[in-house]
Amino acid sequence: LGRWRRRNAEDTLPHCVDNLRGSGNIGNLQAAAGEGEQPFKGMWFADSDVHKTLEAALWELATSSGDAPLEAFVEDTVALLARAQQPDGYLNSYFTVAAPEERWRRPDWAHELYCAGHLIQAAVAGGRVGAHPGLLPIARRFADLLVERFGPDGVEEVCGHPEIETALAELYRLTGHRPYLDLARRFLDLRGRGLLGHGRFGPRYHQDHQPVRESREVAGHAVRQLYLLAGMVDVAVETGDLPLLDAAERMWDDAFHTRTYVTGAHGSRHRDEAYGDPYELPPDRAYAETCAAIASFQWNWRLLLATGRARYADEMERAVYNAIAVAVSSDGRHFFYSNPLQLRTGHVGSGEEEAARRLPWYACACCPPNIARLMASLPGYLATADEDGLQVHLYGDATLTAAVAGGPVRIEMRTDYPWQGRIELTVEGGEGLSRPWTLALRVPSWCAAYSVSIGGEPVQAPARDGYVRLTRAWTPGTRVVLDLDMPVRQVSAHPRVDAVRGCVTLARGPLVYCLEQADLPPGVVLEDVRLDPDAPVTAAHRDDLPGAPVVLSARGVLADAPDTLYTTGGASERTNTPLTLTAVPYFLWGNRKEGPMRVWIPLATTG
Amino acid sequence: LGRWRRRNAEDTLPHCVDNLRGSGNIGNLQAAAGEGEQPFKGMWFADSDVHKTLEAALWELATSSGDAPLEAFVEDTVALLARAQQPDGYLNSYFTVAAPEERWRRPDWAHELYCAGHLIQAAVAGGRVGAHPGLLPIARRFADLLVERFGPDGVEEVCGHPEIETALAELYRLTGHRPYLDLARRFLDLRGRGLLGHGRFGPRYHQDHQPVRESREVAGHAVRQLYLLAGMVDVAVETGDLPLLDAAERMWDDAFHTRTYVTGAHGSRHRDEAYGDPYELPPDRAYAETCAAIASFQWNWRLLLATGRARYADEMERAVYNAIAVAVSSDGRHFFYSNPLQLRTGHVGSGEEEAARRLPWYACACCPPNIARLMASLPGYLATADEDGLQVHLYGDATLTAAVAGGPVRIEMRTDYPWQGRIELTVEGGEGLSRPWTLALRVPSWCAAYSVSIGGEPVQAPARDGYVRLTRAWTPGTRVVLDLDMPVRQVSAHPRVDAVRGCVTLARGPLVYCLEQADLPPGVVLEDVRLDPDAPVTAAHRDDLPGAPVVLSARGVLADAPDTLYTTGGASERTNTPLTLTAVPYFLWGNRKEGPMRVWIPLATTG
Repeated sequence: LGRWRRRNAEDTLPHCVDNLRGSGNIGNLQAAAGEGEQPFKGMWFADSDVHKTLEAALWELATSSGDAPLEAFVEDTVALLARAQQPDGYLNSYFTVAAPEERWRRPDWAHELYCAGHLIQAAVAGGRVGAHPGLLPIARRFADLLVERFGPDGVEEVCGHPEIETALAELYRLTGHRPYLDLARRFLDLRGRGLLGHGRFGPRYHQDHQPVRESREVAGHAVRQLYLLAGMVDVAVETGDLPLLDAAERMWDDAFHTRTYVTGAHGSRHRDEAYGDPYELPPDRAYAETCAAIASFQWNWRLLLATGRARYADEMERAVYNAIAVAVSSDGRHFFYSNPLQLRTGHVGSGEEEAARRLPWYACACCPPNIARLMASLPGYLATADEDGLQVHLYGDATLTAAVAGGPVRIEMRTDYPWQGRIELTVEGGEGLSRPWTLALRVPSWCAAYSVSIGGEPVQAPARDGYVRLTRAWTPGTRVVLDLDMPVRQVSAHPRVDAVRGCVTLARGPLVYCLEQADLPPGVVLEDVRLDPDAPVTAAHRDDLPGAPVVLSARGVLADAPDTLYTTGGASERTNTPLTLTAVPYFLWGNRKEGPMRVWIPLATTG
Repeated sequence: LGRWRRRNAEDTLPHCVDNLRGSGNIGNLQAAAGEGEQPFKGMWFADSDVHKTLEAALWELATSSGDAPLEAFVEDTVALLARAQQPDGYLNSYFTVAAPEERWRRPDWAHELYCAGHLIQAAVAGGRVGAHPGLLPIARRFADLLVERFGPDGVEEVCGHPEIETALAELYRLTGHRPYLDLARRFLDLRGRGLLGHGRFGPRYHQDHQPVRESREVAGHAVRQLYLLAGMVDVAVETGDLPLLDAAERMWDDAFHTRTYVTGAHGSRHRDEAYGDPYELPPDRAYAETCAAIASFQWNWRLLLATGRARYADEMERAVYNAIAVAVSSDGRHFFYSNPLQLRTGHVGSGEEEAARRLPWYACACCPPNIARLMASLPGYLATADEDGLQVHLYGDATLTAAVAGGPVRIEMRTDYPWQGRIELTVEGGEGLSRPWTLALRVPSWCAAYSVSIGGEPVQAPARDGYVRLTRAWTPGTRVVLDLDMPVRQVSAHPRVDAVRGCVTLARGPLVYCLEQADLPPGVVLEDVRLDPDAPVTAAHRDDLPGAPVVLSARGVLADAPDTLYTTGGASERTNTPLTLTAVPYFLWGNRKEGPMRVWIPLATTG
C-alpha cells in the first residue's frame, strides 16, 4: 500500500490534474466564472471530477509537504470555485454555462446534488487536514442553499445519483451544524416514494423503488446503491437511528452473501451498470466498476466504525487489494473503468466501459480521481482508536498515532504485507503509555493460522470476533509480531454461482490471482486450460514482474476442444497435454501485453 | 407446427391487428395520409410493425379462406398505405408526420430503409400469393425512389438496420427489375466504409466495421447482423457472386460454432443487443431476441436453398421449435422479447426486454408481428423441389406439391412430430409420376438411428449429407415411413462455454427441455437441483400439460447451500435429498405460473 500511495502521489494525482485541464473540466468552471469562452465540455457532471481531484490533493498535501505544483492546483482551484459560485451559493458549471434554464429541473438525471456532494467532500477533507480554509465557506454557502431549497419547508426531491447524503453528514461532523444532518436524513427518507420517476431502467436503478429502511436487497446502479448505503450509515450513527443501521447491515448481508465478486467488485450487468440477481456473478461480463469498489470500501469503513465488526474490515481489504488495485496500471496513469474477472480469447469490446486494456482517461472520468482520493486518504483507514486502545485493520508500513485513555500513543508498523504475513508493530511511546490499553490486530478471515509474539516471546492470543486483542501496560520499544500464515488457497464459490461452476480461484493472503495469456506457451488457448486439482499450488518469488514478487505455480492440463458447439453425451471432457501454470496477482494483469485473462480456473475432471 | 399455425391465424394475427390499432400504428399512417389529428405514437420505426402484420395476413389468407376481418384489415391497410404515400413515393409516417425535416438525414438511426424493406416484403408476399395487386405498385414506387436516391448515381449511404437488402433482392425476384438487385448489392458493398459513424456502441453494432466480403465473425446487434446475412445470400445467389456466398458461409461457421444457444437463439448481451465473444453464452443473461431467431431461420433457409446442405435445415428446425416457439404463449397472445435459458430465483428485471413473463405487447413491438409472418409463411419452408425431385426439410402435417421433371406431384405428410419420430409420406399422384424422381428426407443431426420403409417394406437407405434419398418411379398411393429414433439425449456444450460448465441440457428430438419451479416440491430452490448422471432419463406421456404430451423424468439430488459466498477448498459440493425431476419442453415454460427456470442442469459431482 505504501508503494501504491507514492505512485498515487507521483503519477496518478498529477495525471488527473493534467487531464482535468486537458479535458475542459477547469475550462468549464472558468466559463461559469465568466472567464474565457470555452463552451461546456464533457459530461454534465464533470465538475465532480474536479472536486474529487481537489479532495485527493488536499489529503495528499496533508502528508507530503512541498509539492508545489499540487499546492498551486489546490490554490487555483479553490479560487476558481469561489469565482464560479453564483451569488446565491449555487455552483455547477454545466447548469450555469450550458443549461441555466434546466437548473433544479431534472433531479433524476442532473447529478446536481451529486456534484454538490463531492464539493462538500473536498471541503470536509480540507477542514480535516486544516488546509485552505477558503474552500469550506464555498461548500457551506452551497450547502446552505440546499438546506433552504430542499430542507423541511422546501421541495420534496432527491438526487438520482446519491452522494449528497454522506457528504452532508460529513459536513455536519465537521461543522456541527445540525441542518446539514437533518437534510441528509430527509434525502434518505424521501427515497422510495417514486419522486424520481420510472426512467429507462425503472425506479430500482436509482434506488427509488422502496423506502431505504425497508430495503433488504441491494438493487440497481451499483455505485448509486453503495454511496446511498454509506449515507445511511452516516446518518444512522449521527442520529442514533438503529433501525436505519440495521437496514444497512441487512443490505450488507444481501450484497456480500449473494452479489459480490471474489475480488470485492460489485455490479454484474453492463446494461444498467447494476447489481444482478442473487448469485448472478459472471466473471466475463462483470461490470465491476472501479467506483463501485471504492464506494463499497467507504461503506464498509462506515459499518466498521459503527459496529467494530471485523467482516467489514475484511471486505475493505478484499476490495482495496483486488477490485480497486486492478483499476490502476503499474505506471499509475492508465485505468480500467470496468474490472472483469475474465477476458476471453477473441474479445472485442463495444464501448469504453468494457475495456480490454487500461485507458489514460475516460469521457466519463469518474474513476481515476476517485482512486486518487481514496489512495491519498488511505492512511486514515488503517486503524481506529477509542479510549480502550488502538485497532489495526489494514496492514502496511505506517506510523499509527492515537489517543487512548492515558493520552496519545504512537506505533510503528513494518511489514511486507500482502506478500508476507509477518507484521511488526513497535510501540514507540507517548503519554498514553501511562495506563494499560488494548492493541487489537485484525486476523483476516482468509487466515486459518497465525502466531503472535511480544518482545520476542510467543504469546497465546486467540482471536475473538476477528481480532487478536493484547491488553497491557505497554513500555516504549515493545515489539509485537503478528505472523499470519499465507498458504496458497483454492477458493470456490457458492454452488448457486452458476457462472464459475467447477472452477476455483487461486489466492494467497488478501490477493486473488489469475492466469494470463502472457504466461502461457505460444498457441495455447486460455479457455482450454484446466487446473489439476490433485497437485499442490506453490508460491514462488520472482523478480522480473514489476510489483509482484510472489507468483503461484500450479500443474495444469489442456482440455480437448471439440469441433461442434453442442454434443450428445455427458459433461465430462477429455484432456491432453500437461503444462505448468503461472498465476499472477489479479491486480497486475494487463500490464505486460494485452491478452486473455481469467480469475476462475476450471478444474480438470476425470472422465 | 400445424397446431401452432392455427393458433397463429386464430389468435396471434388478430391480436397483432388489434394492437396495431390500439397502439397508434394505424393512426400514424392515417396522420401521414392527412387524416385525423393523432400525434405520432410509438417508436419511429412503428410502420414496420404494420408492414410485417400485413405480410403475415397476406400469407395467411393464401391458405385460409374466408377470414373476413383479416381480409378487411388487408384491404384497409393497403388503401391506407396508398393514401399515406407521398407524391414522390416516400412512405414513412414518422418522417412525414413527426419529423419531416429529418427525412433521409440520419441513416444510422432512422430505420427508414428498414421500414421500406418490410413494406417491400409485404408486397412481395402479396405478389407471391397473387392477392391485393394494389400493394405492389406502392412498394415499387418507393423502391424506385430508393433506386433514384441511393442508386449508382445517388448518395453513398446505407441503413443502420439492415433489411432493405434482402427485400430488394426479393422484389427483384418477383419483378425481374434489375435495378432493385443492383441496389441491394450496392448497399452490401457500401458497408464497412464507416458511413454510419461510430454511434454509442461503435461501428460493429451495425456491421459497419468491415466490408461484408471480408467478414469472418458475426458481430454487433444480432438482428441487424442476421438480416444483413440473409441479404448477402440473396444477392450472392441472384448475381452468382460465389465469394459473397463464401463469406456468408464463413460467418455461419463462426455463428453456429461459437455464438449460438442450444435453443437456436442468438445474442448474448443486453447492453447492445449483440453477439458476445466466442463461447460467451450465458443462459441467464441471454438476450436471445425473438427477432434474431426468426432472422436466423430466414438466413438458414436462404443458405439451404443456395447450397442444399442439411446443416442449415437443422438450424431452422432448432430455432423454430425452441428459440422461436418459446416466444409465444400457449394462448398465442403473449410474447417474450428476450428469451433467456435461465431465470433465477429472485430475478427482478430492469426493463421489458428482460421479461420474466410474456407480455401482450411491447413499446418496441418488432417481435410479435415477426412471429405472425413467419408462422403464416411456414408452409413455404417445409420442403424444396427441383427437377430431380422433392426435398423435405421440416416435418409436420402437410400436403406437399412440387414440379419435378415429369410434371407436378403431390405428397401427403402425416406425423406427430416433434413428439414422435414417425413420419408417413404418401405419394398421392400427379403428372410427375410419369418419370422417376427422388424423394429426399432429412435425417436431423440429432438423430443417431432411424429406419425407412416403402409400401410397408423396410429398405436400406443410408443418409448422405443429412438426407435419405429415395429414387424410383413412384406409383400413386405409395407410402413412405421414416421413423427417427427419439431417445432422450443429454447434450453438453463445448468446454469453452464457461457459463454452463458441468451442466447438461435434456433434449428429445428437436426439442430442448427445461426444469421449471412449477414442477419442484415446495421450498426447493431450483439453483440447488442437480441431475444424477448415472440414472437414466425417461420420456413419459402426460395429459395435463397443455400442448406438451411428452415430458421427461429424471433422478436428481439437492446440493447443500453453504452460508458463505466464497470458501477455501475445492469446487466439489455436498448433496443431500434425492428427488425426481420433471423436465418440460423449453418452449412451454412460463405458461403455468411465473417462476424460475433453467435449461442447463448441473450434474451432481461426487466428492
